[in-house]
Amino acid sequence: MSRWEPDARGRLARAALDLYSERGYDQVTVAEIAERAGLTERTFFRHFTDKREVLSYGAAVLEEQLIRGVDEAPAGTGPLDMVGCALEAAADTVFGTDVTFAVRRQAVVKASPELLERELIKMAMFAAALAGALRRRGVADPAASLAAEAGIAVFKVAYQRWADEASQQPLREVIRACLAELKTVTGAG
Amino acid sequence: MSRWEPDARGRLARAALDLYSERGYDQVTVAEIAERAGLTERTFFRHFTDKREVLSYGAAVLEEQLIRGVDEAPAGTGPLDMVGCALEAAADTVFGTDVTFAVRRQAVVKASPELLERELIKMAMFAAALAGALRRRGVADPAASLAAEAGIAVFKVAYQRWADEASQQPLREVIRACLAELKTVTGAG
Repeated sequence: MSRWEPDARGRLARAALDLYSERGYDQVTVAEIAERAGLTERTFFRHFTDKREVLSYGAAVLEEQLIRGVDEAPAGTGPLDMVGCALEAAADTVFGTDVTFAVRRQAVVKASPELLERELIKMAMFAAALAGALRRRGVADPAASLAAEAGIAVFKVAYQRWADEASQQPLREVIRACLAELKTVTGAG
Repeated sequence: MSRWEPDARGRLARAALDLYSERGYDQVTVAEIAERAGLTERTFFRHFTDKREVLSYGAAVLEEQLIRGVDEAPAGTGPLDMVGCALEAAADTVFGTDVTFAVRRQAVVKASPELLERELIKMAMFAAALAGALRRRGVADPAASLAAEAGIAVFKVAYQRWADEASQQPLREVIRACLAELKTVTGAG
């Protein structure tokens, strides 16, 4: 955002995660996060609205990438596979690069009902964004909503699994495996 | 709960929904809900912890029914179809009987970020409960989590669709149609 604070968002997010891990989300103030990051509170609030928001770092970018992933999926791709393309593309950039961050992030989120709520809201927003992108690609409802919601289900399960196992696999591959598993589960019976 | 307040929970839920529809969720107090229902505030708090909880009326019962539905699904049923059995069974009892209530409920929930949050939390709880039930039926992870999350995706889309259309169809049939559609969506591509 400003040249003299390189990667302020990332530094604040990492500082917040460190402090939440050490002391629990409820016990940490914005002032402490800023201090740990070597930045001011004013800088914090230029990047985030509150201390709950700080772990959603990257959510807006992720949402854009998901939409673009559906926009750019090859013609003739089925609805769920369009979502799969979007999830895999997104996994390569924002979320899927640092499993250590993911492991600690999931532990902190699980321990705080407030963060868990925020997480669920973000996931619902991603599902709505994906459904909208599918509709623009000509997928009718309820197929668009179902593919979007099922895709987010895959993402949630894959991301949690990736973090649970502190997996050496790239997130993209865990997503692909979970998508294949969903197809099996759906076909069985 | 007590003989001289027949269906107090239901009366409070309907009174709350009336008031939320008329004036918006934020503008309504517990005292007003109790008054509209012809009951006391004390009775309100015997049934609900707060005014947000009152629209989740039936959630605990629904969760039990979902679990029982999976427990009782015929042997040899695939994971997603076990969840489908559970959703259809639940639809016949708690949620699926009064589309007019559902239409008004969804409108109120959509208008309130607070209620929407609560809704997402309940759905996450249902998914966790279903995944647990599937594991007890011998379904391994990630299949259990994926089938549970995908099932909840079906339920969300079906319930919304049922309310959107103020459908004359029973909820059970909308759920069945959405489950079939998810299978199509999953297979395509």
